Formats: sequence, structure tokens, C-alpha cells
Amino acid sequence: MYAQHRQAYVYEVLEEMRVGNLDAAGVAAAAAARAADAKPDAYANEPTRWSGFAVRSAKPFNAEPPPGVLVRTYHTPNEAFYVRNHLPVPAVATADGADYRLSIRVPGGVAGAPRGGVSPTDAACVHTLSLADVQALPAVTLTAAVQCAGNRRTEMSGHRAVKGGAWDACAISNAAWTGARLTDVLASLGVPDVGALAAAGVRHVVFEGADADAEGGVYGASIPLDVLAAGDVLLAWGMNGEPLPADHGAPLRVVAPGIVGARNVKWVTSVALSDEESHSHWQRRDYKGFCPSVCLEDADYDSAPSIQELPITSAVGEVAVSADGRSVTARGYAYAGGGRPVVRVDVSADGGKTWAAADLAGADGQVPAAVCGARYRDYGWTLWSATLPLPAPGRGEVVVKAVDSSYNVQPEGLAGVWNVRGVLNNAWHRVPVGGEGEAKE
Amino acid sequence: MYAQHRQAYVYEVLEEMRVGNLDAAGVAAAAAARAADAKPDAYANEPTRWSGFAVRSAKPFNAEPPPGVLVRTYHTPNEAFYVRNHLPVPAVATADGADYRLSIRVPGGVAGAPRGGVSPTDAACVHTLSLADVQALPAVTLTAAVQCAGNRRTEMSGHRAVKGGAWDACAISNAAWTGARLTDVLASLGVPDVGALAAAGVRHVVFEGADADAEGGVYGASIPLDVLAAGDVLLAWGMNGEPLPADHGAPLRVVAPGIVGARNVKWVTSVALSDEESHSHWQRRDYKGFCPSVCLEDADYDSAPSIQELPITSAVGEVAVSADGRSVTARGYAYAGGGRPVVRVDVSADGGKTWAAADLAGADGQVPAAVCGARYRDYGWTLWSATLPLPAPGRGEVVVKAVDSSYNVQPEGLAGVWNVRGVLNNAWHRVPVGGEGEAKE
Repeated sequence: MYAQHRQAYVYEVLEEMRVGNLDAAGVAAAAAARAADAKPDAYANEPTRWSGFAVRSAKPFNAEPPPGVLVRTYHTPNEAFYVRNHLPVPAVATADGADYRLSIRVPGGVAGAPRGGVSPTDAACVHTLSLADVQALPAVTLTAAVQCAGNRRTEMSGHRAVKGGAWDACAISNAAWTGARLTDVLASLGVPDVGALAAAGVRHVVFEGADADAEGGVYGASIPLDVLAAGDVLLAWGMNGEPLPADHGAPLRVVAPGIVGARNVKWVTSVALSDEESHSHWQRRDYKGFCPSVCLEDADYDSAPSIQELPITSAVGEVAVSADGRSVTARGYAYAGGGRPVVRVDVSADGGKTWAAADLAGADGQVPAAVCGARYRDYGWTLWSATLPLPAPGRGEVVVKAVDSSYNVQPEGLAGVWNVRGVLNNAWHRVPVGGEGEAKE
Repeated sequence: MYAQHRQAYVYEVLEEMRVGNLDAAGVAAAAAARAADAKPDAYANEPTRWSGFAVRSAKPFNAEPPPGVLVRTYHTPNEAFYVRNHLPVPAVATADGADYRLSIRVPGGVAGAPRGGVSPTDAACVHTLSLADVQALPAVTLTAAVQCAGNRRTEMSGHRAVKGGAWDACAISNAAWTGARLTDVLASLGVPDVGALAAAGVRHVVFEGADADAEGGVYGASIPLDVLAAGDVLLAWGMNGEPLPADHGAPLRVVAPGIVGARNVKWVTSVALSDEESHSHWQRRDYKGFCPSVCLEDADYDSAPSIQELPITSAVGEVAVSADGRSVTARGYAYAGGGRPVVRVDVSADGGKTWAAADLAGADGQVPAAVCGARYRDYGWTLWSATLPLPAPGRGEVVVKAVDSSYNVQPEGLAGVWNVRGVLNNAWHRVPVGGEGEAKE
């Protein structure tokens, strides 16, 4: 069993298959045998973490910062950047990178002789690069928000139970990433451009990480080839001007800006150009959206596309009531996938009866010119703030909804977006002001 | 005054400025003088139209087909394709194209000597092309849905009054367009590719049509330069294998697939590469979305981006109750802007309590492989059908909502999307089944 399978519904399924119980002596003997035969601690490489995190899972480590901290700065400090690990932090994260190797597999016919690698019998070509090989290419820095597909799952599970770990609204953060363009890495190996790769039948870029389960299965995911075209997919070694931390994929990770966190593979050890999506559990049997009436038993994973770009979303990070109780100042984030900028954020203090457009701030307080329909490459989130009158002294409900450059909007409630995996919750975000026991004078 | 200004709220504004009334004799004299000095009838070139249309405005002509007809075929028959004219049909539509000329203006420095045109003093270069010049380039046929931003405005105005003409859910249609790629037209004039144009400061492609108001002002609109990059913007002369009809822009129109109808300029006579959006009323003071609490007096048009790509939407076209009254078969359309495919359509027969994923059909019954995150060029709509049990014999409510390849969804209700211009209504579409006086046995 994977650690993520240790959940109530799995045990329920297994319960139906129970053939009997071991006696106590047998259990004790088995435990002793396991201890004698113990493998090294899979979690021996976990780094020291920030004490401010709300930890959602210790092993693997899943944690989000408090919302007030999250929306305080445009670039999330490295120590406060949410962590979503699927498996233990691997040993490569704690090494200096000298022994680290990255393999890049390209189909036969689209690249020349392998660099430091081999040509396997399937006519593919496997190149092997050191960290220094990647770092020798031009360094690019770009700002991109990374968001977990399960962000705000707690609200969704409050509506109806879902499969998946709990997250409030802070499984998202924003950083400036430094690395080499993956297109530059491929070009350095003689691999042709995206158009020529597509013509040769390549459809996906498949990644594997060094993080592995007890059976040695590694984390994996893929992105569509076309995502490479803008040149913004990075193999990154830097985060906010510092070396990449262990929890974020040191020494090298994928940053696929505009694409859901799960495809931004950390501790990346393998890149393969393929005609198929990754075969990993997380690509094919996990991060997908379903119709609200589909239950776990009926979920046909092959029928649903893998989540790549995330829909328009926003959340309230903090609210502050004025001294006289008449108004509230709210601040938060908004984000759209696919490089589409946020063009408007509507905020209400009366639960959605009346709205005002918030003030927006991108990097350095600037918001990209709001030209719709362009192929945007605006990957960072947008912070917003608004001061609104409260409907009653010290009391109200702050609600936020955002609009992207295609004029897509957020849905009001959870009923239409609820899904059994608890992903893609982009319903209006609501935060009560005042109320029981906390109303201001 | 433009014809579209002849609305109640404009007269209200004008009423405040009234300085007095003409006496009856004066009015009669003025009318006689106008008749003597009359211009030719601006609506002399209107074609004969299909009798099946629901006409929303006679002058200019605005009409939509019945929903059952609309969703019956993947490609909408030319005669039934919705018509949204802003001005009278111009005389070019009824000529044979021999005298038709298209001017193309490019900034100085990015194109060579003018073709059949002039180099004005502002250092721009104006090329003049005949219809034959455009038709001499390789012909491309692609399927694209075209939708009016005001589609489903009637529902929105039912929620709260808006400014704009009435439309039910059929101000959208789908056709196979044949024409020359605009990028090919530009290349034939020696204009460099989109990347080089962007580097030279070009940001928008500005179009003008031959349709004019009484003062000679012509219809105009623009698209962001980047929309050209995929090569799918056409100067089209064919529609569903037939010559372009007069109501759809003969002899030549813009088809900017994935972009709102208003930018698909008909009877196009001028294309200009510019650093600015079109200055036309319809670009800068019309098709824009606002926060639900913004009223007409407060609308700051400069603050809102021009609508280009439309958000995910869908509608029910027809419902048929089974003979025994126990189930309903519903059919309809779904569409997403920007070339993003529709990846799922959820349908309910009980008003949204339970849902089922509909069967989808694109061109030839095929649905594009559902790979998210790719830079799609899937511009046609998706037809869907579903058969669902009714919650009571012969009675229920069919509701539909769709999901695009970025997992954007439609909002439940009108409250969050309502805006004073009545555009961008993509709330769940609802159709009652049975009900007062029409319930089946």
C-alpha cells in the first residue's frame, strides 16, 4: 500500500475482502521479524520545516502557511511556501548535486548521438546530464504560482465527503524560479523544436522524480508537448534568489508555469519525450475531475482528462475591521491557469448582495495590461485588496470571485463543482466577519 | 445618433438636456425638408431572409434560429445561421466582388513597397488588394462557432434590466469557413511573422467593415496580434461550401476563430497592424464586462478589457419526453473560447440535484482527444445529448453546464455574472419540462 491509500474508504474496501484475523502472538512475531529486517528509514532525509505551517500530513509532508502570511508578500518566502510531497524527500535533496544525474530520453530519429548516455534497443536515445550541464545553459528567472489541485478541499468535503487530504485555501504559493528552459536543454542535445517534435509524433513530456515508495516506484507526471512551445517550462535550481530547498525539489525540479502543481515534478531525474501520457498513478488514476454525481466506484479515470491548467480562482487571505466597525479591509490572492491574467476581482462584504472591484497588484504592484485573447504568459498570481462598508456594525461576510482574461468566472457554490476526488474547488470564497462571540462593538 | 442609441435610457439622458419643444408646424416643415433631401435608403441592400428566424431587430437585422433547428446539425445551415448586424448590409455584399478592394496598412519598416497602394506621410505602407489577390492564396477551411457576446441576454435582463438587444440562447452558430489565412495574406506582402511584428511594436490587428451609419462611420473592431500566431485567422469568402451570404459579410469577412463574434468583422475593407486597439465605439465603449454592482453611469469602459475569448458555456436546444413520461432526452450545444475544447457536459433533469455526463459529438461525431493544457485549436462547438429519468412523470427541469480543457466551469446563477451591458451570460441553462398545462400523463 502507498501511504496515501491509508484512508477510511480504502480500509472499507479491504474490509470486504477480509478472510480472517491473525492471533495476537502471530502479529507480535511478524512485527519482530519486520523490525529485524527493517529498511533504512524512508523519511531520514526530511528537512527541518518552518514552525508556522499548518501541517496536514507529516509523512509524506503536506503543509500550508496561514492565510495572513500567504497574502502579505507577492513572492512567498521559501520557508512559508506550501509543501505538497507525495512520498518521502529523497536523498538527492540532501546531497550537493555533484552525483546528481538527469536522463533525457528522446525518440529515435529526432536527436543525434546520446550525450553521456546510451542508445537502447528501442531506438530511443537516452542522454545523461549533470547538474553542471543544465546550469551551463542560460539562466532564466520567471515568477509562477504553483497550486495544488486539492486546494480548498476542506470546504468541498464539508459539502460532501471526498477522497483526499485536507487543505484549506493555502495550498498555493508564488515564487520567482530560476533555471534553464527545457527547450534550451533539448536544443543543447540536438533535439528539434516543438513543431518538429509534434510532427514526429511526440505528444507529451514525461517526468520522473527521485522520490520513491517502499517498493521503489517513483513519482511521475507529464505535460502536453504544446506547453513547451512558449519556452517557459524550466528545469529550476533556484527559488526566490536562493538555492532550491529540499522540500521543493533540490537540486533540480520542473517548473511548468500555468500548470497544476502535480505536474511540476520535484527532484526530477528523468525527462522523456513520448507519444503517451505518463503511466504514473498520479497522472492516470488521481488528478482528474468528474461530474458531481460520480462516486468512487463509478469513476472512469480514462474518460476524464488529466488536470493541467487550473480554472480561475481566488481567496480571501485576511480581513481587518475598521476601529468604528463600519468597514472591512480584505486582502487575498487570485490566480488563473495557462498564463491567463486575472483581469478583475469582485469583492463583497455582505455575502454577495453587492460587489466592488478590488485593487489588483501583480509583481512590483503592476498589473499586466488587460488585453484579452492574447496568448498570455502571465504565470504569477495577483494579490488584491478592497475596503468595503459592512452591512452591520462589525459584522458581515466577505466573498471574493475573480475573472480571467477569457472572462471565465468562478461558480457560486460547491454543488456544481463537487467531485469525488475533491479537486478543482474554485467556488466563491467566503469568510465571515464578526458573528458568534467575535462581533466588534 | 447611431441606431443602437435609440433606447429608453438614452432618451432619458437626452430628456434632461431638453431645451424646448418644436411646434407642430415646425416639425412638419422639417420632415418635408428631410424627405426632399433624402439620402438613398440605407437598408436598400438587405437580402431576403429565412422565414424561420426569430427576428430580434429588423433594422439593423438581428435574428436567431429556433433552438431545435440550431442543435439538429453540427454545421448550421447558412440560411439558419444567426445574424447580428450592427448597421445596414452594405452595397459591397450585393456586388460581384469585381470592384471590391481591401486595404492593408502596415507600419513603416516592417513591409516593403506598397502593393497597388500608397505610402502615406506617416511612414505606414498601405497595400490595396483585390478579391482575386486574396483568393489566389492557398484556401483553408476550418470549422468555427461564432457567438454574440449578448447571447442569452433575455435571461440576464429578466434578472435585472440591462442595456442591449434581446437574445435567447441561439445567438451562436457553427460553420465551416473557407478563406485565406491572414498570415498568408500578410506574408504575400512581405510582412514579417507575428514575432517580428510584436518586436516592432505591433499589438493589435484592426479591422473595418463596409457597413456604415448615416454619418459614414463604419463598423470596426480589433483582435490582439497574438491571435494571429496559430495561423487560423481567415479572410473568408466561403461558408459551408457555398459563397459567403450577404448577411455574413460577402464578399470577404474576418473569421477570428475562438474570438467573440463582434471582432469577426463582416464586409471587411481594411486591415491595419497597429500599436493600439480599434478606436471604434464597439471596441472601446461596448463589448466589455463589468462587476455586477456597476451601473451604466459608473461604467468605466477604459478599466475593462475588450471581450475577445468567450468563457465556457452551453445550452439546451430541445427536450423530448419519452412516451411513458419517465425519461427525457435533451440535446444542445457547448462552446469554449480561445480554441479550448469542451471536455465534459453535465446534464440534470431534476433542476441540478443529480447530474450525468452527456454524450458529446464534434465534427463527424468525433470529440477531440481530451488532453488538457495543450494550446488547442478546436474552434467548433460541441453538440451533446443525454437521456435521463424524470423526477416525476412528465415533469422536471433540464439543466446543463459544461467544462472546458482548463476545467473552467459555468456559474450556477445570474447574480454573479449579471452586468449592465448584458453580455457574457454563461450561467447554467435551464429548461422546464412539463409544468403548468403541459405535463404529460
